[in-house]
Amino acid sequence: MSWLPSLATETPEEGFELAIKLSRMAVKKTQPDDAARNRMRPDYANSADSLTMASHVVATNFQTVAQANNYWR
Amino acid sequence: MSWLPSLATETPEEGFELAIKLSRMAVKKTQPDDAARNRMRPDYANSADSLTMASHVVATNFQTVAQANNYWR
Amino acid sequence: MSWLPSLATETPEEGFELAIKLSRMAVKKTQPDDAARNRMRPDYANSADSLTMASHVVATNFQTVAQANNYWR
Amino acid sequence: MSWLPSLATETPEEGFELAIKLSRMAVKKTQPDDAARNRMRPDYANSADSLTMASHVVATNFQTVAQANNYWR
Amino acid sequence: MSWLPSLATETPEEGFELAIKLSRMAVKKTQPDDAARNRMRPDYANSADSLTMASHVVATNFQTVAQANNYWR
Amino acid sequence: MSWLPSLATETPEEGFELAIKLSRMAVKKTQPDDAARNRMRPDYANSADSLTMASHVVATNFQTVAQANNYWR
Repeated sequence: MSWLPSLATETPEEGFELAIKLSRMAVKKTQPDDAARNRMRPDYANSADSLTMASHVVATNFQTVAQANNYWR
Repeated sequence: MSWLPSLATETPEEGFELAIKLSRMAVKKTQPDDAARNRMRPDYANSADSLTMASHVVATNFQTVAQANNYWR
Repeated sequence: MSWLPSLATETPEEGFELAIKLSRMAVKKTQPDDAARNRMRPDYANSADSLTMASHVVATNFQTVAQANNYWR
Repeated sequence: MSWLPSLATETPEEGFELAIKLSRMAVKKTQPDDAARNRMRPDYANSADSLTMASHVVATNFQTVAQANNYWR
Repeated sequence: MSWLPSLATETPEEGFELAIKLSRMAVKKTQPDDAARNRMRPDYANSADSLTMASHVVATNFQTVAQANNYWR
Repeated sequence: MSWLPSLATETPEEGFELAIKLSRMAVKKTQPDDAARNRMRPDYANSADSLTMASHVVATNFQTVAQANNYWR
């Protein structure tokens, strides 16, 4: 099964989780080695700027997911 | 209850607060340890560039929230 | 009264001012201490990259304000 | 007269010039001192990354101007 | 044949792959030397911030591809 | 003749080329000296992060061009 069968979600919260998934999947596609990604985790998880950058990517993906769901109106 | 039951808000100001909440929640999802996030606070709260970066994330999320509310027109 | 009663402005220029206000307000919400923000001012006001970053945030907020006003057409 | 009477332009090229103007005006609003801005010019005009950052801001503002003009279709 | 005959894809997952392709193609157009790009790979593939930046570009391109496909609704 | 007579292109690939042109033109407008820009080329063409930043600008401009062309649907 596809990791991304649809952009539709039941709720805004699930849409936010999907935005996080999209953000991480793009990282995984660039660095497919799980061990390498895990080694980097302490770097960004303890850097305020790295976390802000990650939040920006989620915000960008959440725009897409929210629009796909017509903002769950 | 969901932390994000809806993107609808009564006023633009509440929409801006929601955009801030979305920005912070993405950080929390990446670094769930409250103590770790608190330790970083002096870093970004006293760095002009870090604050500008944080403001950019809020601006991106506010685009989504504002559109979801049809700009409170 | 709310600091953001509406996204509507009479003119594009006022809309641009509102975009600047939104950008600064997000900073203020993260660092509410006026003295701390003032101490940082020489840092970013004399750094070309910091100013460019600030301009990017304004541009993002101006997209929202302009759309809210149907581009003052 | 306002420095931004309208987002409407006759041509795409004039729209691009307006996007540049918006980008610079946000810088000027943050650092109004002409001499200070001029002192920084060699810094960013000779840094590839600074120029790329500036181009990103123009791209963001050009989205707004292009949409305001219905893409000059 | 064109490397970009269309923005239409059958599924969201293929759309995400296209967003990655667009992100990489812009890099290739700026640095066409395959060997030079390969030399840089260890740099960004092992830097959390570089991967986050790359994910941001994919997110931006995915907005375009998703809208082109009417969000595969 | 204008360097930007229109945002309309025949194909998505030509639209992508136009997005690259817009990205470079904004750089040229900030640093009009050809020799200065050429001196910087080795800097960004051999830096993964610089290339990613450049790709982000292209992605932003491609959003505009793609929308102007109704996604070549």
